Amino acid sequence: MPHARAIALLTDFGTRDPYVASMKGVIAGRTDAPVLDLTHEIAPHDVFEAAWFLRMVEKWWPAGTIFVAVVDPGVGTARRIVAASRDQKIFLAPDNGLLTFVADGARIRSVEEASLFLPNGSDTFHGRDRFAPVAAALANGLAIDKLGPELREIVRLDYQPGTIVAIDRFGNAITDLVPPSARFALKTGAVAIDRVVRTYEEGGEEPFLIIGSTGCIEISIRNGSAADVLHLRRGDRVEILEL
Amino acid sequence: MPHARAIALLTDFGTRDPYVASMKGVIAGRTDAPVLDLTHEIAPHDVFEAAWFLRMVEKWWPAGTIFVAVVDPGVGTARRIVAASRDQKIFLAPDNGLLTFVADGARIRSVEEASLFLPNGSDTFHGRDRFAPVAAALANGLAIDKLGPELREIVRLDYQPGTIVAIDRFGNAITDLVPPSARFALKTGAVAIDRVVRTYEEGGEEPFLIIGSTGCIEISIRNGSAADVLHLRRGDRVEILEL
Amino acid sequence: MPHARAIALLTDFGTRDPYVASMKGVIAGRTDAPVLDLTHEIAPHDVFEAAWFLRMVEKWWPAGTIFVAVVDPGVGTARRIVAASRDQKIFLAPDNGLLTFVADGARIRSVEEASLFLPNGSDTFHGRDRFAPVAAALANGLAIDKLGPELREIVRLDYQPGTIVAIDRFGNAITDLVPPSARFALKTGAVAIDRVVRTYEEGGEEPFLIIGSTGCIEISIRNGSAADVLHLRRGDRVEILEL
Repeated sequence: MPHARAIALLTDFGTRDPYVASMKGVIAGRTDAPVLDLTHEIAPHDVFEAAWFLRMVEKWWPAGTIFVAVVDPGVGTARRIVAASRDQKIFLAPDNGLLTFVADGARIRSVEEASLFLPNGSDTFHGRDRFAPVAAALANGLAIDKLGPELREIVRLDYQPGTIVAIDRFGNAITDLVPPSARFALKTGAVAIDRVVRTYEEGGEEPFLIIGSTGCIEISIRNGSAADVLHLRRGDRVEILEL
Repeated sequence: MPHARAIALLTDFGTRDPYVASMKGVIAGRTDAPVLDLTHEIAPHDVFEAAWFLRMVEKWWPAGTIFVAVVDPGVGTARRIVAASRDQKIFLAPDNGLLTFVADGARIRSVEEASLFLPNGSDTFHGRDRFAPVAAALANGLAIDKLGPELREIVRLDYQPGTIVAIDRFGNAITDLVPPSARFALKTGAVAIDRVVRTYEEGGEEPFLIIGSTGCIEISIRNGSAADVLHLRRGDRVEILEL
Repeated sequence: MPHARAIALLTDFGTRDPYVASMKGVIAGRTDAPVLDLTHEIAPHDVFEAAWFLRMVEKWWPAGTIFVAVVDPGVGTARRIVAASRDQKIFLAPDNGLLTFVADGARIRSVEEASLFLPNGSDTFHGRDRFAPVAAALANGLAIDKLGPELREIVRLDYQPGTIVAIDRFGNAITDLVPPSARFALKTGAVAIDRVVRTYEEGGEEPFLIIGSTGCIEISIRNGSAADVLHLRRGDRVEILEL
């Protein structure tokens, strides 16, 4: 008995300011659909971080989920709002690359139907004035083709695999590289590591490689931050060396 | 189909300590009403921050919402708990100024009916022992006049318009001043700014003024913190200069 | 009308990374049960902090609650996952001491029934691959004895009363000591305090003792951090001196 059309929110708004709470109010006034938080802790204006987060998370959510992702430095400009639909999931976001990793195979609409927006909305907060009421309308069953004209493509981030895509709370440096079947090492900058373990506990206090929960290689240290010790940052290039 | 009588929480408790989770448990044991978080990141004991947050947020929430706002440095003293009711919304808070900006036109009750509180409650955590069970009772349909005697007035914060009322996560300095129709400048301390833009993107790297999502003037810098660059703080006085 | 079988989450994952959002997706795909956050801000790998948080919180939650607590440095090793059941509440956690303070009188099962787990799950994220689907199954009515064989005991933390068990957001140093009936002082390291007050407000700017919301003694300073001023840390020993 999964939730019907839950709304899942992803923003860079934090929760100390009234932005998320205003969006939730607009939604609560329009639909009984459950509203869930994916995160509001995306670094301000960091579209890549949001895009990668969405990639990591969306596959675990059921059909019917409406993802509302608002990291929107271009709010109020000519940048579009887009809705992408595939596998009975809908992704609503500014057209700034945020849907780069989830839009393959999706039908895409430009969200332009102004009757769905709050009247007299602002130029600075479309999360509240456009995204929230549109998400509520979709949760109530509005067909995506009522949102606006079809688009062939969305804006996509410039991205090359072979990257540290995230540093997590535990200091793990998470790559986008799937391990080859043979033994391998990972090289990033002046650092090369070839010790691969199956669990964090067996890894011990020296840097090691581990297949993380994404299926990709991570650089880790038990009970410490590999990123701090090895001076790794998001965006650093990594490559696999087969041994 | 809006939510019936959702409970919306606003506190300075953070989420690292067990305080919010205890309140939610008390509520969950008494009602099926949905419980939503407005924020728990109000700075400790900062009644003004909470009061302004509530002002910014409440108008976006539907009739039936029960706002529970607990920033309560005077817990256990003779300070009252008050319930304010207007527009089919209820605001529950300590009577310390927290409802300053939302109580106009409201009917007010002093929350004194001890049978609604947890038995053997503490003197140090009314959020759990009084606010939570009272909110659940209201969500289940209890009439506000069962809470206690009517009050004519609540405690109000000393507040003069012409203030930076918040610094947000993006470093925007948010004022409480509505722009005049003509061209204008904003002056705060030694700083005067007269460049007004419509979107953050067109603002560029120099400080500018923008009409924020509250309808009031904000001081901003694109991709940076205007508050840091200009040394602005909450509470700083601002005034409009018509040009 | 309390919630039936709400799922309450407690982790050290934070909310900036996609871990909690992935768990919630797995749950949302399997059950309509409401999912609530206790906290995700446990310090990384801090099993004691999680165990004490759970102790403080669980008694306020109603029968039917399923607590899912994931602070799991040993993920993927031979450490068990356990389910403890008492008072119509279920506690699901790695068997690493996290249930130390809530398991007395509980029936305990080792969670081993692999058909309940996600297929092809990882060795590094049981929160998503095992805890989430098992919690959803329990919320949908699965009997706890279907999870795996009964256990006589769980792993328990080494713990001696007479400890500062938490420093909260307000800087209160929270002990696990119930006040004796007579006048008393509290001693920790070189510090001894004998001034006991009933409310924070009457305590004033000098350190004082107060009976906190847990029923235990706290060391506090009004409008300041007692922990910072007195250099108190979690784990410090404390003792009562009867006067």
